[in-house]
Amino acid sequence: MNPPPWTVSHWFNTQAPVTLEGLRGRAVLAVAFQMLCPGCVSQGLPQAQRARATFREDDLVIVGLHTVFEHHEAQGSAAALEAFLHEYRVTFPVGIDAQENGSPVTMRAYGMRGTPTTLLYDRAGQLRLHQFGHVEDMAFGASIVAAMSSEAPLSADGNAITGVCGPDGCE
Amino acid sequence: MNPPPWTVSHWFNTQAPVTLEGLRGRAVLAVAFQMLCPGCVSQGLPQAQRARATFREDDLVIVGLHTVFEHHEAQGSAAALEAFLHEYRVTFPVGIDAQENGSPVTMRAYGMRGTPTTLLYDRAGQLRLHQFGHVEDMAFGASIVAAMSSEAPLSADGNAITGVCGPDGCE
Amino acid sequence: MNPPPWTVSHWFNTQAPVTLEGLRGRAVLAVAFQMLCPGCVSQGLPQAQRARATFREDDLVIVGLHTVFEHHEAQGSAAALEAFLHEYRVTFPVGIDAQENGSPVTMRAYGMRGTPTTLLYDRAGQLRLHQFGHVEDMAFGASIVAAMSSEAPLSADGNAITGVCGPDGCE
Amino acid sequence: MNPPPWTVSHWFNTQAPVTLEGLRGRAVLAVAFQMLCPGCVSQGLPQAQRARATFREDDLVIVGLHTVFEHHEAQGSAAALEAFLHEYRVTFPVGIDAQENGSPVTMRAYGMRGTPTTLLYDRAGQLRLHQFGHVEDMAFGASIVAAMSSEAPLSADGNAITGVCGPDGCE
Repeated sequence: MNPPPWTVSHWFNTQAPVTLEGLRGRAVLAVAFQMLCPGCVSQGLPQAQRARATFREDDLVIVGLHTVFEHHEAQGSAAALEAFLHEYRVTFPVGIDAQENGSPVTMRAYGMRGTPTTLLYDRAGQLRLHQFGHVEDMAFGASIVAAMSSEAPLSADGNAITGVCGPDGCE
Repeated sequence: MNPPPWTVSHWFNTQAPVTLEGLRGRAVLAVAFQMLCPGCVSQGLPQAQRARATFREDDLVIVGLHTVFEHHEAQGSAAALEAFLHEYRVTFPVGIDAQENGSPVTMRAYGMRGTPTTLLYDRAGQLRLHQFGHVEDMAFGASIVAAMSSEAPLSADGNAITGVCGPDGCE
Repeated sequence: MNPPPWTVSHWFNTQAPVTLEGLRGRAVLAVAFQMLCPGCVSQGLPQAQRARATFREDDLVIVGLHTVFEHHEAQGSAAALEAFLHEYRVTFPVGIDAQENGSPVTMRAYGMRGTPTTLLYDRAGQLRLHQFGHVEDMAFGASIVAAMSSEAPLSADGNAITGVCGPDGCE
Repeated sequence: MNPPPWTVSHWFNTQAPVTLEGLRGRAVLAVAFQMLCPGCVSQGLPQAQRARATFREDDLVIVGLHTVFEHHEAQGSAAALEAFLHEYRVTFPVGIDAQENGSPVTMRAYGMRGTPTTLLYDRAGQLRLHQFGHVEDMAFGASIVAAMSSEAPLSADGNAITGVCGPDGCE
């Protein structure tokens, strides 16, 4: 069974929309974040940037998903996100998760618990890792290679970090 | 000569406006920041929070000044700042530096080079430290005690950090 | 061509000597270190311990090699190393690289430039990574999985760290 | 009442023995450590080195005391300590706490609980801070200035760190 598609209302850092189907054949890392989520800013996004510096784009595609489920007024506009991406030098494609009835569609489709959430797909498009919170770098590098070779994923238990945001606020 | 007053259009985390004059007799730390300035989020504000946890409020007053000089659309609203302060658990008083002709009044009055900028006043209300960028914690603790005792400040050279924001953007 | 064997005069944390031949079929990580090398203490050994916590022993064997090439009087005795391993809670097998004419045999056989040096062997016993200095965790996790699956190693360039020790002293 | 003198069997990095009496008039920081104590290597000594870089020698004297209470064979010799000080670039004076009946005299005289322990004396030679474990940098800088001005010390509670060594071993 294929994982849900990404439902995106606006893309940054890419000329054409990015779809899971269009990336078949390559491993894909998607990081769901919110620009005012402390754990996303201090850990989730920097880790995605380290991954970008570590692996070749031919081997691993990296995208961000801005899954706003709180503080819509502050972080819900494209202008706010654009300023954020500029200041934090995020250069990989980032899509705004489409809002429907006040909640983000993709986040809901995946049953994400909050932000940051890491999604790792193998070359066949299957979801190999769905992790809320932090993944240690070494285990993460291991999981990425496993996804690139379409082998069974290593278990990479995420550890609690402060600053993750869930339905009951950030902690 | 007294340092310039703070010109604030809106205060958070305080019931009454905070003025330098009203704080005479106590050492005062003011941290000028922008909510989308990486160096403010990773260093300037956490350091102010460490200072809050280290010194008694009777000895050291701590305030933030939101000196927005770029990305006004993204970070210029009170709602955006309020969400930021909530997520980052900033509990000391924070004032929005009043905008005049598109630039922040207090920032200009002090000739600040960018954010984060640290201002440290002694008990007599005199400015003892005006620092753009990072101050090491140990030198900072030393400067604060010097300000609390109204003695000559130690020289505390700030070190370059990545993520500080100036007129030419963030670096 | 097989890599050189380890020439060890004394083993800790193992009842029987450990040999590369005896480990054929499993990926192997060997960390060459000196107990008074700052970069080994702050980075090389903690990384090996993180690897031990990340991968199963069935998948990855980890050993330390104490390759003393300086300060023999201070760090050359088994008693000194034993105290060090106890205090730093190193629980994987560690062998003392045998001295010959005042220099460590295994270190010379591999042409190591100093400490820490990371050696990573695949399941077939071939050397896949020989790295002086630091390897970033994410790239390291990737290399380990590549070694476990006997695929081509990712290039994992080590970055300069302070505290590495070479023939001209530590820097 | 004056604090106990330092009883030292051998000094490094100084041509003449250093005594508390001879330092009257200047604030003094003494760091008690063991070369194989992880918390000393990762925190206590680096903090003393940061203090050395932050304060002038005229204002603050810094010395180390090698208080060996375990692993005498491994860390009890002057040669071992000399190699350690060289590799870790400790340039301030360090004295070996004299052994008597297998335990260090100065450590016992002060009733130290283990290593690292920080002793801070004011200009009058009085002990203002006696801290086992870690002191946060900001509070430490504050305490140092208080000692330099012979005022009442701020309370600077040390926080538990891993790697401190006490009578029951390191933890």
